[in-house]
Amino acid sequence: MSARPRVVIIGAGFGGLNAAKSLRHAPVDVLLIDRNNYHTFQPLLYQVATAGLTDGDIAYQVRGVFHRQRNFRFRLGTVVDIDKEAKEVLLADGDRVAFDYLIAAPGAVYNDFGVPGVKEHAFVLKSLERAITLRSHILRQLERAANDRSLIEKGALTFVIVGAGPTGVEMAGALVELFERALPADYPELDMRLARVVLLEAADAVLAPFGKRSQRYAERVLRQRGVDVRLASAVTEARADAVVLRSGEVIPTQTIIWSAGVRTSTLAERLDTELLRGFRVKVEPDLSLPGHPDVFAIGDLSGAGPDADAGKLWPQLAQVAIQGGKHAAETIERRLQGRPGRPFVYRDLGNMAIIGRNAGIAELSERFLGVKMRGFIGWLGWLFLHLIYLPGFRNRVSALVSWAYNYFTYDRHARLIIEPVKGIDWPEPPEEVRPLVSELVPAAQQGTGRRHVE
Amino acid sequence: MSARPRVVIIGAGFGGLNAAKSLRHAPVDVLLIDRNNYHTFQPLLYQVATAGLTDGDIAYQVRGVFHRQRNFRFRLGTVVDIDKEAKEVLLADGDRVAFDYLIAAPGAVYNDFGVPGVKEHAFVLKSLERAITLRSHILRQLERAANDRSLIEKGALTFVIVGAGPTGVEMAGALVELFERALPADYPELDMRLARVVLLEAADAVLAPFGKRSQRYAERVLRQRGVDVRLASAVTEARADAVVLRSGEVIPTQTIIWSAGVRTSTLAERLDTELLRGFRVKVEPDLSLPGHPDVFAIGDLSGAGPDADAGKLWPQLAQVAIQGGKHAAETIERRLQGRPGRPFVYRDLGNMAIIGRNAGIAELSERFLGVKMRGFIGWLGWLFLHLIYLPGFRNRVSALVSWAYNYFTYDRHARLIIEPVKGIDWPEPPEEVRPLVSELVPAAQQGTGRRHVE
Repeated sequence: MSARPRVVIIGAGFGGLNAAKSLRHAPVDVLLIDRNNYHTFQPLLYQVATAGLTDGDIAYQVRGVFHRQRNFRFRLGTVVDIDKEAKEVLLADGDRVAFDYLIAAPGAVYNDFGVPGVKEHAFVLKSLERAITLRSHILRQLERAANDRSLIEKGALTFVIVGAGPTGVEMAGALVELFERALPADYPELDMRLARVVLLEAADAVLAPFGKRSQRYAERVLRQRGVDVRLASAVTEARADAVVLRSGEVIPTQTIIWSAGVRTSTLAERLDTELLRGFRVKVEPDLSLPGHPDVFAIGDLSGAGPDADAGKLWPQLAQVAIQGGKHAAETIERRLQGRPGRPFVYRDLGNMAIIGRNAGIAELSERFLGVKMRGFIGWLGWLFLHLIYLPGFRNRVSALVSWAYNYFTYDRHARLIIEPVKGIDWPEPPEEVRPLVSELVPAAQQGTGRRHVE
Repeated sequence: MSARPRVVIIGAGFGGLNAAKSLRHAPVDVLLIDRNNYHTFQPLLYQVATAGLTDGDIAYQVRGVFHRQRNFRFRLGTVVDIDKEAKEVLLADGDRVAFDYLIAAPGAVYNDFGVPGVKEHAFVLKSLERAITLRSHILRQLERAANDRSLIEKGALTFVIVGAGPTGVEMAGALVELFERALPADYPELDMRLARVVLLEAADAVLAPFGKRSQRYAERVLRQRGVDVRLASAVTEARADAVVLRSGEVIPTQTIIWSAGVRTSTLAERLDTELLRGFRVKVEPDLSLPGHPDVFAIGDLSGAGPDADAGKLWPQLAQVAIQGGKHAAETIERRLQGRPGRPFVYRDLGNMAIIGRNAGIAELSERFLGVKMRGFIGWLGWLFLHLIYLPGFRNRVSALVSWAYNYFTYDRHARLIIEPVKGIDWPEPPEEVRPLVSELVPAAQQGTGRRHVE
């Protein structure tokens, strides 16, 4: 242990990053732990999955964010348990890390709500690696269909998105643009009009968090652009080759994208404290755990607010995490100064979503006079704010270049099918060695590596 | 079979791409087969492995190259065998593809020359996926050393490159720059001077293809920049935690990068024809196989030239593949016109390599008056020519932006550890479910997905 109190932060998402930054002048040692060495800008994962942006555009190495912060250290690792009494966190590699203060911001994971087959067959948009996997899968379906039309009836070109929240709506909008604008030139042998994007929603409206008019606008634009929007259509089973609706209807598909909702990281259960809806941790007004003032739960992990007991929890949005991270940091600083922590007040900025090219929705909160923007202006506002919040100058430039390119060319640059290494680079011994091979000069006498000249 | 003769091309490397492009006006149907849906610009793989460029910068989707070529089709697949008699190629998925003409350009793979342990423990720079894997491994070693200094003696910060051809030299130069300039700010807890880059070469000079003066220049610059260059140092064994030299010396390392030389794709053995040194296919003067005028072997796969029998083969360079691809296409066109094929003449343009920032070597051939450029001018020439040959406007812009950024900031943008999906997004059931969890409102009653607002 160092002389100064150590603040351990779990998770390099919006909450963890902002908590660490806010502690830059505090007399503490900050240790941020994440299983990735980069921050993932989750709101744009759907654009990686639809080939509009590359991983480098939306991921930013955590250490790069803190070059000038002396009291900051990073640890690559996965936290598997938390011991509030011993004040230690346990990592997957067996290491134990002691803390004086803990800020838990592990975020959320997708929730299958017990629907059978989802874990096995559905894709999700919660990590960079999974977004790349989904992109590769989507492009692979087009390659398969181009080579064998009969696969189209089996759903090779049917892409089903379950859950019409902002993630589902943005994914649906990006997919139809991909098929309508970017891919037809790639696949002259395919009639791209056969590609179907189905958006399934259990409720009777898209974009639950938004107002009625915005919901109707989004639904209208999605339909106009060719998305098959199905409201009041709950999914009862996901299969390898189809999705089953409560109505009994079976939609053949090779691609189920699950955006029906989230639950907290399983670290919530590890905290051994009261949990609310969606496994969210019930916290004190200052975001600390009941009976453990040195342990804070923020972001998607925590749930509270004035009406928490009535089930009204903070939304699981970046703003809640950002503000919560800053508040936890401030509370720790106040404690060190012997002052009491203050209650966290979530300042609602509003909701924002994009349906696609020139079509966005921004509903600002009362503090901004409840201004509502739709269409081109909403879309511009969305682009602007995403650029602001994207960490790192290099990423902003890169994303802006990509967006400008995509907008004016209708192209989608990153149409790469990238799979985990399959060991394809080493030659396999041929089944039978041809006689002529034995006449070869031994390969070992060959010179050193030579290489391309351009 | 279609009415027009079908030309099947194996491989979307420099040879295959240029063969397909050259056939755009020919009365044939072109089918290009590759196991990836993108062309990999191999000369820059080392920059992906050292975080200077992202995959999107050096990979270009094959279909995008041929948007305007009516007679072109692409097939994603891995060719595992060739039947010259039945005129079919066999794919890994079991499909058989018939051809009237075949242009085989499967390229080369690394050659371990029978050194034990290389297959199991060495990294190579022959595919995009492996370059990303190597980058992730290198960065992971730094994370491990930062967390546990004792790993440094075990070679966590010792990076051994075997083979000082252009690939090995460029990798060594890029690595020292990474450690000297880009990473120290990332790892304040690590003394980056402990990072060692060892370049092992069995011969007594680096850059075999180049002239003596260029070789000495490259060696001097590498040593000045901190590379531990070991000449006449053959490797006899690769281990998980060390590399063993013929001298008996054992160098502890967690990272062996094998660039000691290549051999042809194992399709060479499948062609059932005479093979030369390095398993290269002996071809007729027009690049067709002896006795099979409709089957062509080009690029790294083929070996010939006036002194082939004396063991003097064409170098395995991009230019040989590019020129060979064009020649095979022209020969097929001539055959269709009832004209005889012409002998292939390799026009040597010269050799080029980069040691690092402001330090390049360009040795032009006689046709360019044998001009030799070293240092800054050689480096500029290298950048310029790589930009020219990089396929796709978008990639050129993107690479240029990356290079300008890297040059002026000394930063390396893509410091991302990206692993294959490990299934980390779905919550694991907690070992013991806490009693309080049972009091939860059933998760299934939760609303639809909500998401970040920026």
